[in-house]
Amino acid sequence: MPRLSEFDIIKTFFNQPGLGARPGEITRLGIGDDCALLSVPPGKELALSMDTLVEKIHFPENAPPELLAWRALSVNLSDLAAMGATPVGFTLSLAMPAVNESWLQQFSTGLKNCAEKFHCHLLGGDTTRGPLTITIQVHGLVSSGQALVRSGASAGDNIYVSGSLGLAALSITRFDEALDQSLLDEAFYKPVPRLALGSGAAGLASAGIDISDGLLADLGHVCLASSKGAELQLADIPVSPSLEKSMNAEEALALALTGGDDYELILTAPPSREDEMQTLAQSVDTPLVCIGKITDAEGITCFDGLGEQRTFQKSGYQHFNA
Amino acid sequence: MPRLSEFDIIKTFFNQPGLGARPGEITRLGIGDDCALLSVPPGKELALSMDTLVEKIHFPENAPPELLAWRALSVNLSDLAAMGATPVGFTLSLAMPAVNESWLQQFSTGLKNCAEKFHCHLLGGDTTRGPLTITIQVHGLVSSGQALVRSGASAGDNIYVSGSLGLAALSITRFDEALDQSLLDEAFYKPVPRLALGSGAAGLASAGIDISDGLLADLGHVCLASSKGAELQLADIPVSPSLEKSMNAEEALALALTGGDDYELILTAPPSREDEMQTLAQSVDTPLVCIGKITDAEGITCFDGLGEQRTFQKSGYQHFNA
Repeated sequence: MPRLSEFDIIKTFFNQPGLGARPGEITRLGIGDDCALLSVPPGKELALSMDTLVEKIHFPENAPPELLAWRALSVNLSDLAAMGATPVGFTLSLAMPAVNESWLQQFSTGLKNCAEKFHCHLLGGDTTRGPLTITIQVHGLVSSGQALVRSGASAGDNIYVSGSLGLAALSITRFDEALDQSLLDEAFYKPVPRLALGSGAAGLASAGIDISDGLLADLGHVCLASSKGAELQLADIPVSPSLEKSMNAEEALALALTGGDDYELILTAPPSREDEMQTLAQSVDTPLVCIGKITDAEGITCFDGLGEQRTFQKSGYQHFNA
Repeated sequence: MPRLSEFDIIKTFFNQPGLGARPGEITRLGIGDDCALLSVPPGKELALSMDTLVEKIHFPENAPPELLAWRALSVNLSDLAAMGATPVGFTLSLAMPAVNESWLQQFSTGLKNCAEKFHCHLLGGDTTRGPLTITIQVHGLVSSGQALVRSGASAGDNIYVSGSLGLAALSITRFDEALDQSLLDEAFYKPVPRLALGSGAAGLASAGIDISDGLLADLGHVCLASSKGAELQLADIPVSPSLEKSMNAEEALALALTGGDDYELILTAPPSREDEMQTLAQSVDTPLVCIGKITDAEGITCFDGLGEQRTFQKSGYQHFNA
């Protein structure tokens, strides 16, 4: 079989139906020119976020290509969710050591499935030789002035977290006999970006962030940007129920607080919006619990069920200290 | 010295004055949140393009970091120029094997200088460990419906090329004793994105592309997208004068036609717009010559000064056949 050129690769694998963006009201021009063109409707702002996954740093060698593609796109979509934005399209830079058609077939299938599920299609990008590296930039729309910025939290705001925490971190740190490997793969490779919750919270919540580095670390980013602190009630942290099969409650709580990679949302909102927050959570069918309050005093303080203060040493993932 | 965290790196090197985008009319939010936010004025479309440079594939090991940064940004800006768009900001994903402060200092200085020169500041991105890989996405504005798409060429249109061709290719293919190395470095690392020419040509030229793969290859992309062909007058090709010092006229012409990496623009326009094209070129102080015509017959045919047909074997850079 003759070797595929870059143009063949793009045509065969990336501009396929269901994956490549088609021209429409927002996407004016997709794959195949010097630039893609987007039209942004009046009253909207374009949110954009870029994230890179490198083999042997962010995922193991020989990671299943279909799942890998899903993860690469969904962790980026989570950043749109955390901003309250609705996806409109993404760009992809794919560096790979050689042209492996079977790998490309599986990778592009995973990408297509994720793109279709979350209505976010491929606008363009770059393919090149190099160590396996996947960079994706997502683009979304949010009503002007309503984005969920990190700096918006005020003292007295409730702190909410969606879903449950800790399982993705477990899937990274160890092979676990007590748990089904496919459950762990799902947690790591297929996090669900909380897009409906995020876009519903735009203009309602005061601040938002997604949990990539760990609950304490990411809440810390909100506190820092808002020049505030936080008090957390440890009894209210939604620890993943699956963790109980494989460790004690203390270990599970520590993983839920510091583990990262769950891509759940942290949202803050004034107590006056409590009813609206719960109505939103129900309407988008997403678990959402209040785990504490934003404070004027800096730092994050954790209290156990008896009201005793607790500290945790490791606060989250550090990109250059692995 | 304690090891720098990702946040320290961003703060110290990338969000420095002159490099990090500051909030304004277009940039609503820059570095430091889950997403950056852009506002697109009514009547404008957002053009976006992504390009990746991998060490040992696109640039040599130990490439000078300041020049490397300049190249990474300027080749992306060239895509905006080719679309007729004016830059508004860029995102950067930087994978690097370790945190080398001296390297980061030089790299971010190069990036800052290029950003300031072309009014395109850093909106956000990602830094991570990994083999040295630089992915940049640029964002620009172009009046709605006026972008220089590849598919716009019509039979009878003049074909123009800016500047002169061949020197960048020479700088890649060989160390040349007859030429000053700094001249070659400049050609390779600091191509000038033809932004003023491109934005002036939006709504005037019928099609545009920048020369990254080689004149014949990139003109071929325009012809393919427009379902047209081209006739070129070889005597009119603007071969870089510096090449004459180091090779004969035939070799120089071949390099100018097939070499790539010059990042000059190919523009097409109906003969009725000839005066406007030349007035534009003068007003932006950029050499622009007519090198041939778009034809209904497919394929690119080259004629020498005697009207004899000539063919060239290698048509341009192939990303997976190096």
